[in-house]
Amino acid sequence: MHPSRWGNPAEAAALPESTRGLVELALGVRETPAVEQVSLPPVGLADDVLSELRELLGDDFVLTDDEHRRVRTRGKSTPDLLKARAGDLTDAPDAVVRPATHGDVVALIELAVRHHIALVPFGGGTSVTGGLVARREGYAGVLSVDLIRMKGIREVDKVSMTVVLEPGLRGPEAEALLAEQGLMLGHFPQSFEFATIGGFAATRSSGQSSAGYGRFDTMVVALTMATPQGTLEVGSSPANAAGPDLRQLALGSEGAFGIITAVRVRVKALPAEKVYEAWQFPSFDAGADAMRHLSQNGLMPTVLRLSDENETALNLASQSEVGGDSAGGCLMIVGHEGVSVAARQALVGAALGELGGTRLGEERGAAWAEGRFHAPYLRDSLLDVGVLVETLETATFWSNRDRLYKAVTAALTEALGEKTLVLCHISHVYETGCSLYFTVAAPQADDALEQWLAAKARASQAMIDADATITHHHAVGTDHKPWFAQEIGEVGVRILRAVKADLDPTGVLNPGVMIP
Amino acid sequence: MHPSRWGNPAEAAALPESTRGLVELALGVRETPAVEQVSLPPVGLADDVLSELRELLGDDFVLTDDEHRRVRTRGKSTPDLLKARAGDLTDAPDAVVRPATHGDVVALIELAVRHHIALVPFGGGTSVTGGLVARREGYAGVLSVDLIRMKGIREVDKVSMTVVLEPGLRGPEAEALLAEQGLMLGHFPQSFEFATIGGFAATRSSGQSSAGYGRFDTMVVALTMATPQGTLEVGSSPANAAGPDLRQLALGSEGAFGIITAVRVRVKALPAEKVYEAWQFPSFDAGADAMRHLSQNGLMPTVLRLSDENETALNLASQSEVGGDSAGGCLMIVGHEGVSVAARQALVGAALGELGGTRLGEERGAAWAEGRFHAPYLRDSLLDVGVLVETLETATFWSNRDRLYKAVTAALTEALGEKTLVLCHISHVYETGCSLYFTVAAPQADDALEQWLAAKARASQAMIDADATITHHHAVGTDHKPWFAQEIGEVGVRILRAVKADLDPTGVLNPGVMIP
Repeated sequence: MHPSRWGNPAEAAALPESTRGLVELALGVRETPAVEQVSLPPVGLADDVLSELRELLGDDFVLTDDEHRRVRTRGKSTPDLLKARAGDLTDAPDAVVRPATHGDVVALIELAVRHHIALVPFGGGTSVTGGLVARREGYAGVLSVDLIRMKGIREVDKVSMTVVLEPGLRGPEAEALLAEQGLMLGHFPQSFEFATIGGFAATRSSGQSSAGYGRFDTMVVALTMATPQGTLEVGSSPANAAGPDLRQLALGSEGAFGIITAVRVRVKALPAEKVYEAWQFPSFDAGADAMRHLSQNGLMPTVLRLSDENETALNLASQSEVGGDSAGGCLMIVGHEGVSVAARQALVGAALGELGGTRLGEERGAAWAEGRFHAPYLRDSLLDVGVLVETLETATFWSNRDRLYKAVTAALTEALGEKTLVLCHISHVYETGCSLYFTVAAPQADDALEQWLAAKARASQAMIDADATITHHHAVGTDHKPWFAQEIGEVGVRILRAVKADLDPTGVLNPGVMIP
Repeated sequence: MHPSRWGNPAEAAALPESTRGLVELALGVRETPAVEQVSLPPVGLADDVLSELRELLGDDFVLTDDEHRRVRTRGKSTPDLLKARAGDLTDAPDAVVRPATHGDVVALIELAVRHHIALVPFGGGTSVTGGLVARREGYAGVLSVDLIRMKGIREVDKVSMTVVLEPGLRGPEAEALLAEQGLMLGHFPQSFEFATIGGFAATRSSGQSSAGYGRFDTMVVALTMATPQGTLEVGSSPANAAGPDLRQLALGSEGAFGIITAVRVRVKALPAEKVYEAWQFPSFDAGADAMRHLSQNGLMPTVLRLSDENETALNLASQSEVGGDSAGGCLMIVGHEGVSVAARQALVGAALGELGGTRLGEERGAAWAEGRFHAPYLRDSLLDVGVLVETLETATFWSNRDRLYKAVTAALTEALGEKTLVLCHISHVYETGCSLYFTVAAPQADDALEQWLAAKARASQAMIDADATITHHHAVGTDHKPWFAQEIGEVGVRILRAVKADLDPTGVLNPGVMIP
């Protein structure tokens, strides 16, 4: 990936003319090209350290050239892109190192401790919360620990329906290896095409089929994590009462406690059938109430997603593929995968009909499934024409949903001005609540970075003030840290700091990330 | 409860004659009455401390009389009962204190730190792993923190289907308060009648309807825990990615990190219907495979339980109620609760029939449901006639189930001799594996306590050697501690010790419990 753009350049496209017209009307358009050919800061590592790294991993796996360092500079948040577009690559790692085994990772950590070098685990590089931007002051250098060589699948257990996956597998690579065995993980976040198993685990990722297959943290039954104090291996059983669940302390640790080198995950049989259909609800409230009914009555489909009125009207993500008019109201996507799909479709459909929904059919559902990973490309096209665009997300209990929705919308609008478009959808549903995922677009100010950071701060504080989480599935990174302590409180922060101090006393693991 | 017996004396009964005959034949019978009228050690607390406690909580809520101290001495494991039966009450707390509020608990902890007094949270007193036996050496005394006054239900949220429960509510008390609102928790461990919400949370309890309603730790969406460093409040949303899940560090902490003073749990609507039916399978393997099929194909009933050949034949728990012949093979109990029960019963029944099961009907299912909380009384009757009897449990992945089953059975038989009866059932089922719950009976040796501890040691090591957990739902306490480090490894132990040292630097919280 290029540090200033999403994904695969071949998949990207300029803004479609129809969308461009709409954007021009609503927000105004101003060509804002990225600065290219930026030079990187010099490699700050001492020669003896580089020699030692090369001895450990081999010359081919210690990379200090501009191109490798460039693409491992920061992640994919809009601030990350804005910095890269402005030519700022000051956060580039000094070198990219590629361990091949758990033993390599252990040795790397030992070396990093000895030389006081910061280690930043790198999978797909898709963090949108600054998880790849380690603090460098006081360190002898920053290494991007690229897990690209750790792509194995081991211990395929079709009786228990578990497999062990290595952290460097990208989403499609893991699914392809599993598909050879007739198996599937079923984890499809928007970053699916690029993000990796290790990243999913380290950030408590959640995918678009979470209604049916669960969050990534619920898929992990065991894991191995290398730390400066040795290796943590936990997960003796599907569930147990042997003390606190330490799996859940490693999941979400974002490289700050250790580097996850393997996860045992539960898998599913490849679905015999898949059907996605679209429904229309008269309002966001009506649609959300219908979702709540499904979740609280054992009627959860595999995919369940609801756009608010604004997102439905704009239908940004799939407009170019689907074309045609918006159906008005609020669009719901309902997907069923597996066996007995027709029966489940009928049951859920009957309930949705009773709850005020109108079935729009499978064409729009299929269009959503087709375009589901493409939204981030659109952001680049919008940034190119001077539109500030970013997403953020939160979650809360059902009774607090509307309050949270209004609070975040108001915070964003107040911060970014009247021309701001705030779109929202619910894409993760639980018995007790749901996530809210916002897409924001506004005309770029001269200092778009400052403009966004101010808006993000308002929105994050609004989430805290509305008793919600600062992030349902994007992790803390560095960007959410200022609000994280308010969410988990002083005692929560103490616990994280105590674990950090014990496992990583010299602080070489992703310094500055996650822990307040 | 009496320290040497289970539950309510009015519910207990001598061994039925039919059972006594069977026991006599298999194991031999020797009347072994408990020693009564044992004196307790003197109250070891200084007068100024007692005065301070009385000032804090009121005279009525600081109890130093023999009766209150006696019933809060240890828990309900067979070793606990054997010690009490032999007249050993050396582990009695110095006093029983009854806080009424979170503020009281905070103040108690502050006082305990100041005077270096050990605090043992007490709910129902049903620990079977020594969770109530804190280390007393080096402390100025031991207080049993009886949460009996904290029985509130707050913030009933029927939209989100959550309520906040206080820790002192016993199972039936919580369900009764919820039932007034048309709601239900659905947590029914064998200790249900006595154990409390706080204990369920602190020990990661799992109940007999876990197939349908989940483990207790999956029910908790938020919690409040008082620690010497302040109060931990976590649970901003149904699920989130804001760092590691600290709820899962408090759940299972067994009073060693803090005292849980409230939990927000997800609740269900009271089930419209309940049906329990019995099935017969030709073998334990066949029955377990059928359970696995249900769990991996979205056909999970609410209750799913399978006895092995021995347990089916002896049918100890319900024999006196049901009477009649054993059906042979292996007995499975399948319960459906909620709505659409008939349809689900038909679906699951069809699958079970295809997998080799024979339906025995609802009478035996109802008998199981009727007698489900009575098994512990039988233990007392057996101890009275010189039979050593105890239960232990573990869990593993499906592919390892048979190996674990054989290993634990062999360990127990080798330790206790050829006359040993080992019964087993599976009562908790997951997509990737299941629990194994063993009941063991053998003729008592002269030193029954030593005899059992040796057998327990063999069985626990067998679980570890078979890559399984030392406990699926009974927690670590003091009894499982010798094997706990092998399960979570050196790094796991470090993490627990680091959190303990930070939250409870003077070590007053349930010292000696859980943390190796």
